[in-house]
Amino acid sequence: MSDVCRWGILSTAGIAMKNWHSIAASGNGQVVAVASRDAAKAQKFIDECSASVPVPQPVEAIGSYDELIAREDIQALYIPLPTGVRKEWVIKAAEAGKHVMVEKPCGVTAADVQEMIAACEQNNVQFMDGVMFMHSARLPQLRSVLDDGKSVGEIRRICTQFSFCADEDWIGSNIRANSDLEPAGCLGDLGWYTIRMILWTMNYEMPTEVSGRILTGVKRDDSPQEVPIEFQGEMHFANGVSAVFYNSFRTQHQQLAHISGDKGYVELNDFVLPFYGNRVSFEAGSHEFIFEGCRFIMNRNLRTESVSEHSNNMPNAQETHLFRNFSTLVNEGRVDAHWPEITLKTQQVLDASLQSAHNGGQAISL
Amino acid sequence: MSDVCRWGILSTAGIAMKNWHSIAASGNGQVVAVASRDAAKAQKFIDECSASVPVPQPVEAIGSYDELIAREDIQALYIPLPTGVRKEWVIKAAEAGKHVMVEKPCGVTAADVQEMIAACEQNNVQFMDGVMFMHSARLPQLRSVLDDGKSVGEIRRICTQFSFCADEDWIGSNIRANSDLEPAGCLGDLGWYTIRMILWTMNYEMPTEVSGRILTGVKRDDSPQEVPIEFQGEMHFANGVSAVFYNSFRTQHQQLAHISGDKGYVELNDFVLPFYGNRVSFEAGSHEFIFEGCRFIMNRNLRTESVSEHSNNMPNAQETHLFRNFSTLVNEGRVDAHWPEITLKTQQVLDASLQSAHNGGQAISL
Repeated sequence: MSDVCRWGILSTAGIAMKNWHSIAASGNGQVVAVASRDAAKAQKFIDECSASVPVPQPVEAIGSYDELIAREDIQALYIPLPTGVRKEWVIKAAEAGKHVMVEKPCGVTAADVQEMIAACEQNNVQFMDGVMFMHSARLPQLRSVLDDGKSVGEIRRICTQFSFCADEDWIGSNIRANSDLEPAGCLGDLGWYTIRMILWTMNYEMPTEVSGRILTGVKRDDSPQEVPIEFQGEMHFANGVSAVFYNSFRTQHQQLAHISGDKGYVELNDFVLPFYGNRVSFEAGSHEFIFEGCRFIMNRNLRTESVSEHSNNMPNAQETHLFRNFSTLVNEGRVDAHWPEITLKTQQVLDASLQSAHNGGQAISL
Repeated sequence: MSDVCRWGILSTAGIAMKNWHSIAASGNGQVVAVASRDAAKAQKFIDECSASVPVPQPVEAIGSYDELIAREDIQALYIPLPTGVRKEWVIKAAEAGKHVMVEKPCGVTAADVQEMIAACEQNNVQFMDGVMFMHSARLPQLRSVLDDGKSVGEIRRICTQFSFCADEDWIGSNIRANSDLEPAGCLGDLGWYTIRMILWTMNYEMPTEVSGRILTGVKRDDSPQEVPIEFQGEMHFANGVSAVFYNSFRTQHQQLAHISGDKGYVELNDFVLPFYGNRVSFEAGSHEFIFEGCRFIMNRNLRTESVSEHSNNMPNAQETHLFRNFSTLVNEGRVDAHWPEITLKTQQVLDASLQSAHNGGQAISL
């Protein structure tokens, strides 16, 4: 038992700056060291983070991933490395007895994810992916609305869309359009969330059928394969529920989750990164159609459900919950098998939708 | 030239009660007679309508469609007959020199619609389908936002969903689940709107590829064929824009139109029948993602665009505009070829999506 989980950050990806703050704000964790292949780069990262969010403890810059992994004074590693090179380091970390928080998409394939998870199981360390929205207080609130029997009722249809619009420079240079580093492109980067949201909604029931289509692909000179930068997928479930998702690097910010059932629907327009503020919300309820003689009226009857939670960075923001929840497991010496399980399911659906896309959209049975 | 278009209503479908009011409120039209196969039923309809919305002129109940069509004192017919039996009467009406407003889906097939339109052309009478939202002041406002180059920008993705949840009795008895009368089921009844909204958004460019899938079908004893009561379709356009639509009789009220582009998106949650009120609205704009050091912030930056228009029944409601616009054409002796053209395109997409659904979802090239 310990009060503070001691973290190492392995790689200086942009998202790690945000999570420097998450760990600092968590109250039960602290960053001890940051590794890059170049110690100067690690130091620069630490300096930039410290200027934005100072921390009381010293943080060491390390010029080698292996060296960070070998440190005895670190219990947990946050690993936002590119997907194409991540597996090796996750397995090394697990074998060194380190708990691992892994950025998404977690693997190139579900087989890779299984290897990583197996290494974590064998070494009795926690595996968790870095999907922040899973840790928002909005989700239990949403679940209670989905389960109340009257707001949505029996679920029929789920539609999720997550996109941002990158410019040509980004498409031409970012790792997310390089098949060696991020082979699933926007499906890996954004589809991970849309698929996860659908699986969460379905209480992690797996679809019986998955299909996908690359709407736009990019084949860069430095990329062995084409990478999807605009993608659509479908999931069909045994009980007749259907879901569609859309991901794009060429469509401006949207984060739509629309879940409809036989009693009504819920809609989130910011399901991944909540809109800035101190309340996190969604719309719920049933429109009411009435007619009196010649008058046909559609009453809106939507209500806003909110939880008091900051959208980002604050001690009660979802990413802070993520790291706090992880540190709690580490500090209490527990391993929760739920987290690797949902990672694997997400990756399996992602794999199937990409496989379908590469086979002319033919449906894949799971 | 005339100041008042004289209308006959051919059949006493429920929607005709609403349009009794539309004509009464239009200011340039009036109902002269209502026909049913049973004059008593026509009289009952007139009595019920008059009790809800009294009109100054006498309205005659007629026990024969042919008799109504033959009347010399009527210029326009509103024909909300079931789709399976409508064509014959539309053609008869056109041949009798009557302008026709036709409920949707307009035909069993696009070939039927072409026959109806040809009959109208030959007789120099107006053909128009009864899609009310086309006549709302919201659409020009939405077009100006779509065209402003900054709110949505280049369109990438369109998602439309329109559904209501019928009970078992309704599914077991309503004509919309009988293949003789409404062979396209929810696709005809609701898909007509979702397809139309997509085509409108695309300025009536036709998709190059259409596919569909019956998610749930019903085969009643009195229905020769299975009828879709839950349906999804896809449309793909030459410029890479993709669209999905969802229609259902088993999912509670939703009327979602979500149009996203490289600059932002617009969303309507009531695109068919606006929520009750005296303003008709949609959301528009771009979320703004900013980061300062470790702080990643998503600003909502959505604005509500509204037009001053009543949602329903009032002189400035969309259905009143529909009948007023039609009566204006009749009163001014003009025929506008735009309306039959968009009806035919809508029917062609509907046909293709149903054909695809009957062929295991295989894409249909248009």
